[in-house]
Amino acid sequence: MPQLRLALAQVNPVVGDLQGNADQVVEWTRHAAERGAHLVAFPEMMLTGYPAEDLVLRSSFVEASADLVDTLAARLAAEGLGDLAVIVGFVDRTPALSTDSAALKLPTDSAAFLFRGQVVARYAKHHLPNYGVFDEIRYFTRGDRLPVVRYLGVDIAMTVCEDLWQEGGPLTAARLATSGLVVNINGSPFEHGKADVRLRLAQRRAAEIGASLAYVNMVGGQDELIFDGGSFVVSPAGQPLVQAPRFEDGLVVVDLGLPTATDDRVGTVDVGDGTLMAIERVDLRTSPLRPYEAHAAGIAPPLATEAEVYAALVLATRDYVRKNRFTSVVLGLSGGIDSALVATIAVDALGAGAVNTVALPSRWSSDHSLADAAELARRQGTTHSVEPIADIVTAFEKEVDLHALAAENLQARVRGTILMGLSNEHGHLVLTTGNKSELATGYSTLYGDSAGGFAPIKDVPKTLVWKLARWRNAQAANVGKTPPIPQNSIDKPPSAELRPDQLDSDSLPDYGVLDPVLEAYIEQDLGREAMIAAGHDPAIVDRVIALVDGSEYKRRQYPPGPKITPRNFGRDRRLPITNRWREPRSDADLPA
Amino acid sequence: MPQLRLALAQVNPVVGDLQGNADQVVEWTRHAAERGAHLVAFPEMMLTGYPAEDLVLRSSFVEASADLVDTLAARLAAEGLGDLAVIVGFVDRTPALSTDSAALKLPTDSAAFLFRGQVVARYAKHHLPNYGVFDEIRYFTRGDRLPVVRYLGVDIAMTVCEDLWQEGGPLTAARLATSGLVVNINGSPFEHGKADVRLRLAQRRAAEIGASLAYVNMVGGQDELIFDGGSFVVSPAGQPLVQAPRFEDGLVVVDLGLPTATDDRVGTVDVGDGTLMAIERVDLRTSPLRPYEAHAAGIAPPLATEAEVYAALVLATRDYVRKNRFTSVVLGLSGGIDSALVATIAVDALGAGAVNTVALPSRWSSDHSLADAAELARRQGTTHSVEPIADIVTAFEKEVDLHALAAENLQARVRGTILMGLSNEHGHLVLTTGNKSELATGYSTLYGDSAGGFAPIKDVPKTLVWKLARWRNAQAANVGKTPPIPQNSIDKPPSAELRPDQLDSDSLPDYGVLDPVLEAYIEQDLGREAMIAAGHDPAIVDRVIALVDGSEYKRRQYPPGPKITPRNFGRDRRLPITNRWREPRSDADLPA
Repeated sequence: MPQLRLALAQVNPVVGDLQGNADQVVEWTRHAAERGAHLVAFPEMMLTGYPAEDLVLRSSFVEASADLVDTLAARLAAEGLGDLAVIVGFVDRTPALSTDSAALKLPTDSAAFLFRGQVVARYAKHHLPNYGVFDEIRYFTRGDRLPVVRYLGVDIAMTVCEDLWQEGGPLTAARLATSGLVVNINGSPFEHGKADVRLRLAQRRAAEIGASLAYVNMVGGQDELIFDGGSFVVSPAGQPLVQAPRFEDGLVVVDLGLPTATDDRVGTVDVGDGTLMAIERVDLRTSPLRPYEAHAAGIAPPLATEAEVYAALVLATRDYVRKNRFTSVVLGLSGGIDSALVATIAVDALGAGAVNTVALPSRWSSDHSLADAAELARRQGTTHSVEPIADIVTAFEKEVDLHALAAENLQARVRGTILMGLSNEHGHLVLTTGNKSELATGYSTLYGDSAGGFAPIKDVPKTLVWKLARWRNAQAANVGKTPPIPQNSIDKPPSAELRPDQLDSDSLPDYGVLDPVLEAYIEQDLGREAMIAAGHDPAIVDRVIALVDGSEYKRRQYPPGPKITPRNFGRDRRLPITNRWREPRSDADLPA
Repeated sequence: MPQLRLALAQVNPVVGDLQGNADQVVEWTRHAAERGAHLVAFPEMMLTGYPAEDLVLRSSFVEASADLVDTLAARLAAEGLGDLAVIVGFVDRTPALSTDSAALKLPTDSAAFLFRGQVVARYAKHHLPNYGVFDEIRYFTRGDRLPVVRYLGVDIAMTVCEDLWQEGGPLTAARLATSGLVVNINGSPFEHGKADVRLRLAQRRAAEIGASLAYVNMVGGQDELIFDGGSFVVSPAGQPLVQAPRFEDGLVVVDLGLPTATDDRVGTVDVGDGTLMAIERVDLRTSPLRPYEAHAAGIAPPLATEAEVYAALVLATRDYVRKNRFTSVVLGLSGGIDSALVATIAVDALGAGAVNTVALPSRWSSDHSLADAAELARRQGTTHSVEPIADIVTAFEKEVDLHALAAENLQARVRGTILMGLSNEHGHLVLTTGNKSELATGYSTLYGDSAGGFAPIKDVPKTLVWKLARWRNAQAANVGKTPPIPQNSIDKPPSAELRPDQLDSDSLPDYGVLDPVLEAYIEQDLGREAMIAAGHDPAIVDRVIALVDGSEYKRRQYPPGPKITPRNFGRDRRLPITNRWREPRSDADLPA
């Protein structure tokens, strides 16, 4: 049984930084060589970053990526790394297709197999996702060829991300070609719980195709998406052979025993998804290695929901700040749980020295607001200041006569204006502290508390905000550290403090009731009747639907923030602002 | 030659208002009946509104639409309109497909043929656009059947919008089935100059298929899209037989002489786009009418660019305001051309009584700013007020120490906060007055002049802003009215007036130079080298690219505004914020 030492490089490219991304490939290939690997695989669109969105429609970008993969192959050889095979994702030029008129000249989302200074095989992604956050039919031409590379006596096929998720297609071609190893390269966005789904899917697919399946995922944040790593290899029997840690870039190495390549089938095959694919063969090194002693590989332990979500938010915040070349952030601390959690995420992401916190008390702010904010800053070591807003609010009130909600919003906007002023003056990125429950119901002020450049907990429901705060404090306590978040910020009833004695519960259902209804309506996209059938209270369902539907305009102007659920507010959920649809109240109420 | 009186109902549905849209179908069908029509056609997705975006993914919405088309057929018959055939667009349930696994149960973008209380034929859109502002592969299953309805001795096929634009597909099926009339129903978004393109395309297609081609388009604004009407019919020889006015809802009626139906071919045909379609037949009334006297039909004159863009902006503003149930708007008047044009559009859209204008002078505002703003308000009759911001800015400055750009932005944000306060207090929608050149270059303040609910000139380059202002004044002068916009607002050099003697030209190239470079980079998506090859100055190209690339984050939080160019900032151009791509400066500079 031929052996092969496979390295999975789950690294963190930057969208558009082709040179820097190529440098990372060289650096990690050198690490793989030092660990004796025979093949190292990098993620989907490693050279361009992913998703590159409409950059892919610009020919200068596609040409740069397609040229770069050739120069990268030559550079690896020149640096003495040519004998280590490399699989790397990139954007390739528009293919010549026989079967498609390709009216739009779209490129391909491709994997290249590099060896001894050459690109010896290119595979173009076959299944293009066009749902959820994905718009890949906008960007790419579908590939219809599967090159199988014979290397060290093993037949190796490359596939890309969605190819694993759909029935039929290149995995079927790989089975028909009797591939011994399929290397699936990914840019698979994080959602809580998705790591298990991926692994189980890969186990099923490996069994279906009777081959080992390697899954290498990207790490890092890119605007609203987080790539969580967790790369792995499963055997044809579905056994996990190695699993990388999540949310960290790095290399995992595994020694595989793989079947001897014997099949030479080429040509067009029906791949069971209504299309045909061409199997091609590339012979690189047909003889197996002499047997060597295999090393044991590690399996990273699974993470609980709070642990994976918290790690995801820290990574997303760090990458948004750094990749956009900010070195510091500023946020308002209300003494409440949302801003306390965001400050803690920021400190964990960037270090306390990069985090500026500001208390912005109004005439309605309680004493504990200021005290809890100061206590958090003290515990975490942020640069803290206090900027009272009452005199500014008074100056506005002398000019314009505002009441009730208008007066409440004014206070929030004065705060937003101060934070943006500090950002402009000092170059800090403003972090927005709103959570998903607020954003869903419109319980926020446009240009007020919603102002900022990045919103770390934008996709985190309020009940999960509390869980994360408790989890983070417990993590600290477990190692004998002071919990970073004052217990009072966790325990106090939530309040916007925009009028005397205001509580969130004056305007919203209890969050323990609200969040499951929001999940049903937003993440599961259920209609009214289906939500009620699922056991939610009809009156609350109606209230929540009205709040969510009526605040789409606010969400459209909200800053980006990391996606952690199956459906975030952003590319995942695209609703019109102008929208008179009201969920039917029963069959009898359907329009007639 | 059988005759048929065809009515094209280019009407204005509201997204989600299924009941109201069905009411419109009944109302306009009655008008068509009174004018003796035998067939009346309504636009794409008439019953649901278009685009309904992710509403289409909700089963309660699809079920309501699919049920409604049946109840509508029955209602038309009950109201004595059953003998008038109706073609209407709606969203239909997921079809049973033989050839596709349809893992995602997506519905169809369909046309129904209603007659005598029944839905006698259903056609599902075959070509689904997934580029530009369109994401239809996200939403719909592609149809693969073409029903041909024999009615009054004529064979009539229905197609939907994009079916006309792509080669092959249902038009090929219609040709193979020897259809005498193809009715293409549309929700085709406006871009300046597109009306001509549509007509020429339809002329070519009619000739290709040897049939008359009727094109009925929607009218109205839906968030960023404008539907401009301009419905028409062309003969097989490419002769326009009728053309409706643009930007107005209404009915055009035309008497057609059409070939006698004789073909009975059914079954599967190759439609030349790599797919097969099934031709089906429905016999409704196979005998032609007795000959009758045909009426002459009108051809609306074409519109010049300024006229069509101005009409588009008025329609978009009116519909955004009214469909979102606002009754009034407020905007800041700086005395400059942008806010003057927006105020004029608002008055033309809503009437002066619904328009509130506010001058917000700072310590740096010039006398002419206030005078020009007041003069515009006087000429147009808006409710005008003056709210000086200097004292409020001073109150901020006492609290936080801001300099240079931070101090300039502060003034803009105080203005934004006042306008939003007036909006919250009085229920006015805030109109944002920024133009496309500013938005492209980031020459605006987040939460300052970019605050608001709708931005009427968001997609209008500054040079076109001036042209539109001059054109609107000339329109008034031509009929002896006072020009609505003070000449001084048109003639003065543009300035943000955020510091003493500031001019736009301190920060930006002259707009006459800037706008063509922006068009090359944004609308044509050219890379640096291509822009220089097209004759643009390299230094300015570099400066513009840097400005545009660096301000993506601002655009992401900008309010919606009407698309009038081939590529607006919005769904048309989707770039990452985190983006280190820099256009290669020459081949030698490509990453290596």
